[in-house]
Amino acid sequence: MEESDTLKTEIIENFGTPCAVIDLDIVERNIERVQNICEDAAVANRPHIKTHKSPILANMQINAGARGITCQKLGEAQVMADAGITDIIVATNLLGAARSGRLSALQRRLPLKVCADNPVSLTLYAEAAHQADRVLDVLIECDTGQKRAGVETPGEALALARTIQQDPWLDFAGLLFYPPLDGWPETQIFLDEMSTGLAELGLTAGIISTGGTPNFINIGRLKGATEHRAGTCIFNDRMMMQAGVAAIEDCAFNVYSSVVSRGGTDRGILDAGSKTLTTDRGGLDGFGQILEHPNARIDRFSEEHGFLDLAKCNRKPAVGDIVRVIPNHVCVSVNMFDQMIAVRSGQIESVIPVAARGKLV
Amino acid sequence: MEESDTLKTEIIENFGTPCAVIDLDIVERNIERVQNICEDAAVANRPHIKTHKSPILANMQINAGARGITCQKLGEAQVMADAGITDIIVATNLLGAARSGRLSALQRRLPLKVCADNPVSLTLYAEAAHQADRVLDVLIECDTGQKRAGVETPGEALALARTIQQDPWLDFAGLLFYPPLDGWPETQIFLDEMSTGLAELGLTAGIISTGGTPNFINIGRLKGATEHRAGTCIFNDRMMMQAGVAAIEDCAFNVYSSVVSRGGTDRGILDAGSKTLTTDRGGLDGFGQILEHPNARIDRFSEEHGFLDLAKCNRKPAVGDIVRVIPNHVCVSVNMFDQMIAVRSGQIESVIPVAARGKLV
Repeated sequence: MEESDTLKTEIIENFGTPCAVIDLDIVERNIERVQNICEDAAVANRPHIKTHKSPILANMQINAGARGITCQKLGEAQVMADAGITDIIVATNLLGAARSGRLSALQRRLPLKVCADNPVSLTLYAEAAHQADRVLDVLIECDTGQKRAGVETPGEALALARTIQQDPWLDFAGLLFYPPLDGWPETQIFLDEMSTGLAELGLTAGIISTGGTPNFINIGRLKGATEHRAGTCIFNDRMMMQAGVAAIEDCAFNVYSSVVSRGGTDRGILDAGSKTLTTDRGGLDGFGQILEHPNARIDRFSEEHGFLDLAKCNRKPAVGDIVRVIPNHVCVSVNMFDQMIAVRSGQIESVIPVAARGKLV
Repeated sequence: MEESDTLKTEIIENFGTPCAVIDLDIVERNIERVQNICEDAAVANRPHIKTHKSPILANMQINAGARGITCQKLGEAQVMADAGITDIIVATNLLGAARSGRLSALQRRLPLKVCADNPVSLTLYAEAAHQADRVLDVLIECDTGQKRAGVETPGEALALARTIQQDPWLDFAGLLFYPPLDGWPETQIFLDEMSTGLAELGLTAGIISTGGTPNFINIGRLKGATEHRAGTCIFNDRMMMQAGVAAIEDCAFNVYSSVVSRGGTDRGILDAGSKTLTTDRGGLDGFGQILEHPNARIDRFSEEHGFLDLAKCNRKPAVGDIVRVIPNHVCVSVNMFDQMIAVRSGQIESVIPVAARGKLV
């Protein structure tokens, strides 16, 4: 048997299928590469943990040199704080977490950095900081073309900065950007205008954060940027391969799935469906890439089945075969699992809980 | 304040957003209606619990008259068995659960009914039954047009029935169908031919199961059917409304979400994205229906944000508003939550764990 067949047998006999498997050699190489990219660009690395949701992996990133971490949910930050991580940006408007008392409870434990793009968030943050009896650091989220969250003009950003400045429970901590791939010049214009305005207010942006794995091609282009936050790069996926920022040997996360049925010559069924790989398309053809059968197309899903079109496969999988699937979008697939099996050199090394899975608030 | 505003305030102050909320009055009405439909058609009701993944709700269905339950994963059956439910069909080829020893472990505790459409599954089932020292009931899954799992001819089904008959560790328990909406006549032809063949073998199909919520319009049309399994009907969703089998007042499950940002006149952002509502499209326009703003379109998702196109809304939501969203596909959205808040007449009554969430094997 090949090494990969031995591993497959060991995995199915211990864990069944479908299951999530990460290759630690690739994970460590990806962590190191990202750290080097950031250091070469003279910005700090603050990985986004939404991809792996694991304090074990977050601490590997910090030990490799990351300044701290980025979370998208307060519940994620709670899990990371429980594991001893203290330098955390929560990169979104936290309304549900603020109004339910969760923000003040965590802020009482450690000084968080949160983000806002509107005055309602600031009012709720000030209340939470007051309840926690600890001043809260706030970054202003700025949109320079993605049309996601963020104020769209330096004027709006400055108005929020003034509100923060005037509130005894809030401290202005900086600016959060997610520049479009081709929008870094516009982001520079926004930042420069903003810096002038902040200087007039007597404020300084201690943190100027850029984001995104595909944006590694642009890193260093924004003068004044202090750090970069990227998530997917720890594992990579089909979307990152399509974006040209990862090769197949950089993809650290696979779903191991059994072929459970074969209907006719050209049909096959995996035991991994939309509740495992998710229906995220990401502009790709099909719903994942099968390493053993690159010409098999994951055509559609039911909740627990992936339906294969095998018309283009010369060697077709048999019922009982175990295949490895690279998902289209790894961040949402990791989130479907309670744990990841960590392997190294074809051996199972450990089981890593996806500890912040499902932390929606 | 309106009753719904009071409830929204209570929910966000206790649980934050996004959160899953079910209306028990509607749930109970849906359960009763499905039970009545089955009784009127003289078939037993065996609800599919993949939709709610909750033993509490499964027991409500059984108390209303359901014969037993259907699961899609062995891990779901384990959770249900832990809650005292004993009459369980697992409606799929269980390769991963069989090879990892999980099937034999549960079969040792209680006699399961499992499904197969191929000889590999039967071999693994016989081994599991032998290990459990208890004969395993097997239904043969038959495909009459869906092109999902299932043998496509009575001849294949009879060959599997013979294999089951000859194995001392397997008992032939019946046939599992999921007829296409317009494929019930073909299913009758399949079943009649199958019944003749089974009689020649001296076998009887104790269970002849049909499935699907949209198929309630066909229930009773298959002569010989003994039971029906449907999942979505306990909650309903946009797909069921589109299929014409539910109205908006039959939708029991909402995601409560905060409007966390407003970008310009026609853009808004919810704190519910693809990790909450999922990207399941189901042939619908947009990714969910907002009850308070029926003309708002959930246009696209990031993982934790839903991006709203508000161009067609006269009254647009404000930052801080809480809105209720009916998902496109409720079964996959429930699966994103650890718990559902159960309300009745505008009051929080209990918190129901999604106990089998993420049971992938």
